[in-house]
Amino acid sequence: MVYLPQPLNLLIDELAKLPGVGRKTAQRLAFYLVNDKENRAEALAKSIIYAKEKIIFCSVCFNMTDSDPCPICTSAKRDQKTLCVVESPKDVIAIEKTREYHGLYHVLHGAISPMDGVGPEDIKLKELIVRLQQHDVNEIILATNPTIEGEATAMYISKLLKGTGIIITRLAHGIPVGGDLEFADEVTLMKAIEGRRRLD
Amino acid sequence: MVYLPQPLNLLIDELAKLPGVGRKTAQRLAFYLVNDKENRAEALAKSIIYAKEKIIFCSVCFNMTDSDPCPICTSAKRDQKTLCVVESPKDVIAIEKTREYHGLYHVLHGAISPMDGVGPEDIKLKELIVRLQQHDVNEIILATNPTIEGEATAMYISKLLKGTGIIITRLAHGIPVGGDLEFADEVTLMKAIEGRRRLD
Repeated sequence: MVYLPQPLNLLIDELAKLPGVGRKTAQRLAFYLVNDKENRAEALAKSIIYAKEKIIFCSVCFNMTDSDPCPICTSAKRDQKTLCVVESPKDVIAIEKTREYHGLYHVLHGAISPMDGVGPEDIKLKELIVRLQQHDVNEIILATNPTIEGEATAMYISKLLKGTGIIITRLAHGIPVGGDLEFADEVTLMKAIEGRRRLD
Repeated sequence: MVYLPQPLNLLIDELAKLPGVGRKTAQRLAFYLVNDKENRAEALAKSIIYAKEKIIFCSVCFNMTDSDPCPICTSAKRDQKTLCVVESPKDVIAIEKTREYHGLYHVLHGAISPMDGVGPEDIKLKELIVRLQQHDVNEIILATNPTIEGEATAMYISKLLKGTGIIITRLAHGIPVGGDLEFADEVTLMKAIEGRRRLD
């Protein structure tokens, strides 16, 4: 490798650890940060430390928040009797963007995956059960990902809650809106046919 | 926009200011940093501040360095009588990677661009002249970019140094190695024909 000043090399190393950031991008970003004259580098460094310090997980739903319980859990406008179970805080944002869901969330922080050594005790499942014992819930929407792990987790939870009287639902699978039948994979297409609805 | 905790929003804003980082990537990186359990976020923040503090510009060649003069300027192995004039420290790295150049550098930190209001006095040109007065230089390789601004800068410097007895050269233009004639643009192809060399 070409000689680079050590502080610059160190910065490139750290940037290259970010997901989706390769060596070349890391170098580009490092050069930008070092040459920047508007104190953006310092602002970025400070905002990383600030976010790390302030962001916690809501003790009720385990979503990311800077106040506990989080604004969604404490909102009077939300339907307290509907829980949407998701794998990660990113999924909460995705669903919130639809502006169609007005219930609460429960973030599992993972999905059951025996292959990766992740069992039911490794995700926030015990916390979900405790929550259901303490609060009156009518419906649980299982919005885990449509992956093997996500499906397994959804199946596990639905079996676990059988007989509790809570309505358990799962997000619909199907052709994405704006998608093309031609490019849909077989499993999606099969699920779309299975889940077909009458139009009359 | 969907509600996000303010420290997270702040971090996303700062990340989105990085070149080539859009809102979506910034969000992904912010989530990664906040959820990271291996103190990489803190290490990154520290390395940004460390690099900002330590990286300076060499007072001789204006390349990035953490010691002044830089290791290239002070190296006894380098040909002190050849200067390669480039626009930015990135260009130094690109040329160093070839391992074929053993002279010194002069980083202009820009190129003359009347359109952007960058004149000869806005780049390290005065410093180049002073350097040439103080040190004995045989050849100057003008390695500014093959853009309008880079060409203009090269022309400007070559006129400025006319009559000084210093050999002024310019990097060859032509078809990139491994490139395909079919995909070369007309100007490159024209330059390649102009610069053709005898093989016998």
